[in-house]
Amino acid sequence: MKQLSSNRCFGGLQNQYEHASGVLNCTMQVSVYLPPAALQGNVVPVVYWLSGLTCTDQNFTTKAGAQRVAAELGVALVMPDTSPRGVGVADAPDAAYDLGLGAGFYVDATQGPWNSHYRMYSYTVDELPALVESALNLGPRRAICGHSMGGHGALTIALRNPSRYVSVSAFSPIVAPSQCPWGEKALTAYLGNDRSAWTVHDTVALIEAGAAQLPMLVDQGTADNFLEGQLKTPLLERVCKRKGYAATIRYQDGYDHSYYFISTFIEEHLRFHAQHLNAL
Amino acid sequence: MKQLSSNRCFGGLQNQYEHASGVLNCTMQVSVYLPPAALQGNVVPVVYWLSGLTCTDQNFTTKAGAQRVAAELGVALVMPDTSPRGVGVADAPDAAYDLGLGAGFYVDATQGPWNSHYRMYSYTVDELPALVESALNLGPRRAICGHSMGGHGALTIALRNPSRYVSVSAFSPIVAPSQCPWGEKALTAYLGNDRSAWTVHDTVALIEAGAAQLPMLVDQGTADNFLEGQLKTPLLERVCKRKGYAATIRYQDGYDHSYYFISTFIEEHLRFHAQHLNAL
Repeated sequence: MKQLSSNRCFGGLQNQYEHASGVLNCTMQVSVYLPPAALQGNVVPVVYWLSGLTCTDQNFTTKAGAQRVAAELGVALVMPDTSPRGVGVADAPDAAYDLGLGAGFYVDATQGPWNSHYRMYSYTVDELPALVESALNLGPRRAICGHSMGGHGALTIALRNPSRYVSVSAFSPIVAPSQCPWGEKALTAYLGNDRSAWTVHDTVALIEAGAAQLPMLVDQGTADNFLEGQLKTPLLERVCKRKGYAATIRYQDGYDHSYYFISTFIEEHLRFHAQHLNAL
Repeated sequence: MKQLSSNRCFGGLQNQYEHASGVLNCTMQVSVYLPPAALQGNVVPVVYWLSGLTCTDQNFTTKAGAQRVAAELGVALVMPDTSPRGVGVADAPDAAYDLGLGAGFYVDATQGPWNSHYRMYSYTVDELPALVESALNLGPRRAICGHSMGGHGALTIALRNPSRYVSVSAFSPIVAPSQCPWGEKALTAYLGNDRSAWTVHDTVALIEAGAAQLPMLVDQGTADNFLEGQLKTPLLERVCKRKGYAATIRYQDGYDHSYYFISTFIEEHLRFHAQHLNAL
């Protein structure tokens, strides 16, 4: 990993790195916050943050105010990009914000032209943690968290890999991409028309199919313009109730889809994760 | 004031407004954070934030994490833009970042082509507070704070108007614009070659001339690339010592000029101001 920048922040370091990704077949950037405890030589646990549509590694890094809490709790934050990038990486023909660049949806594409780069699932689950945890001496305890498309990513990745994450949380997640326009568009493009290939990337479908329990916290703003048409939190509530899945799903009155919402509740999410990260 | 956006944040509202400015002769945008106490009908005190070169009303608003503390303390935050904007507003011929748009330097320009719009001093001291405090039922207690060029703005404005502000603080301020390239370029353009017109916009010169005491806190990162050539904090230390001016001037080890620095210490600045805002 090549370090691109490093800024002192709450006694730790907010760093940005560049690295070659074999899985994505391109060069990627990733931001990492190292808390003071890590700088003192301790091996600290990690919270992965997955961002939403249009984001890079910088949105959460600059806007969420998470470093203050991470510094106190002694956890590292790893913030990857949301899609492969660079020359030769396909984008939507109309440069739509909800497909292609900035919209990897945390799946491994099987369809052209996406399948030569768009493998954000394997990148996020395997390649990136192996690289960053080794290079920066982090882990092995790991939690995952995200927003919107990244909330979908965090939930599906954790549900499919419960032994790799001690806990999962999400802000405004797309809980059922098989049942909303954003998800149907992306999964059709990346995975094809056969919807049976979609279910492992659909939180509601995974819980319906009996996914293992792990500590789960979801926050959803009631003033979020995407709640009804895209995010569909009630579908998650219903499947959790039906299957006895013990998730904490909260509606936050008057909050929208923005980073102002995330910044307000990120402290509670990080404390939730720290409780499980430190309990091991 | 026309409201452009409103986001729930830490129980309060992060709003952005547009308004006609007679002083600046253009339309301006300003961001305001209203803490929960204000939404409950209380008249709350205000902290004004003045940003640095290249910034708009959005940089501090999205990156500093100040709303959390303002919510707790019950103070409003007012974040103006850093220059006039719009069609017909002059910019540097080469669109330089340190003159013209985004670089108003909180002075009232007397030289063409700047003098038809660039009156950020009067806008910040008079027009904006009158407008925003009346429209949003804020004040009358008021503190002021800023970063870099905005740190210069906060310090000079407070020193010239000690009865209007209970306290002043700054991150990485340009303490002596008469003695650094950024300041010399801007003050020459806006105020002309006669340096006697500059002294009322120079913190070190104002304190040298016997400015009245008011509570003052300054934070400066030791890893700030602009410290030696532009900011020159030691000049402020020296004049304060010589004149018996009781400012708290702190060097923060390893911090740079970025918002990661500001986000780390903004809580201490807001608590400093709240102490004086609530003591009246």
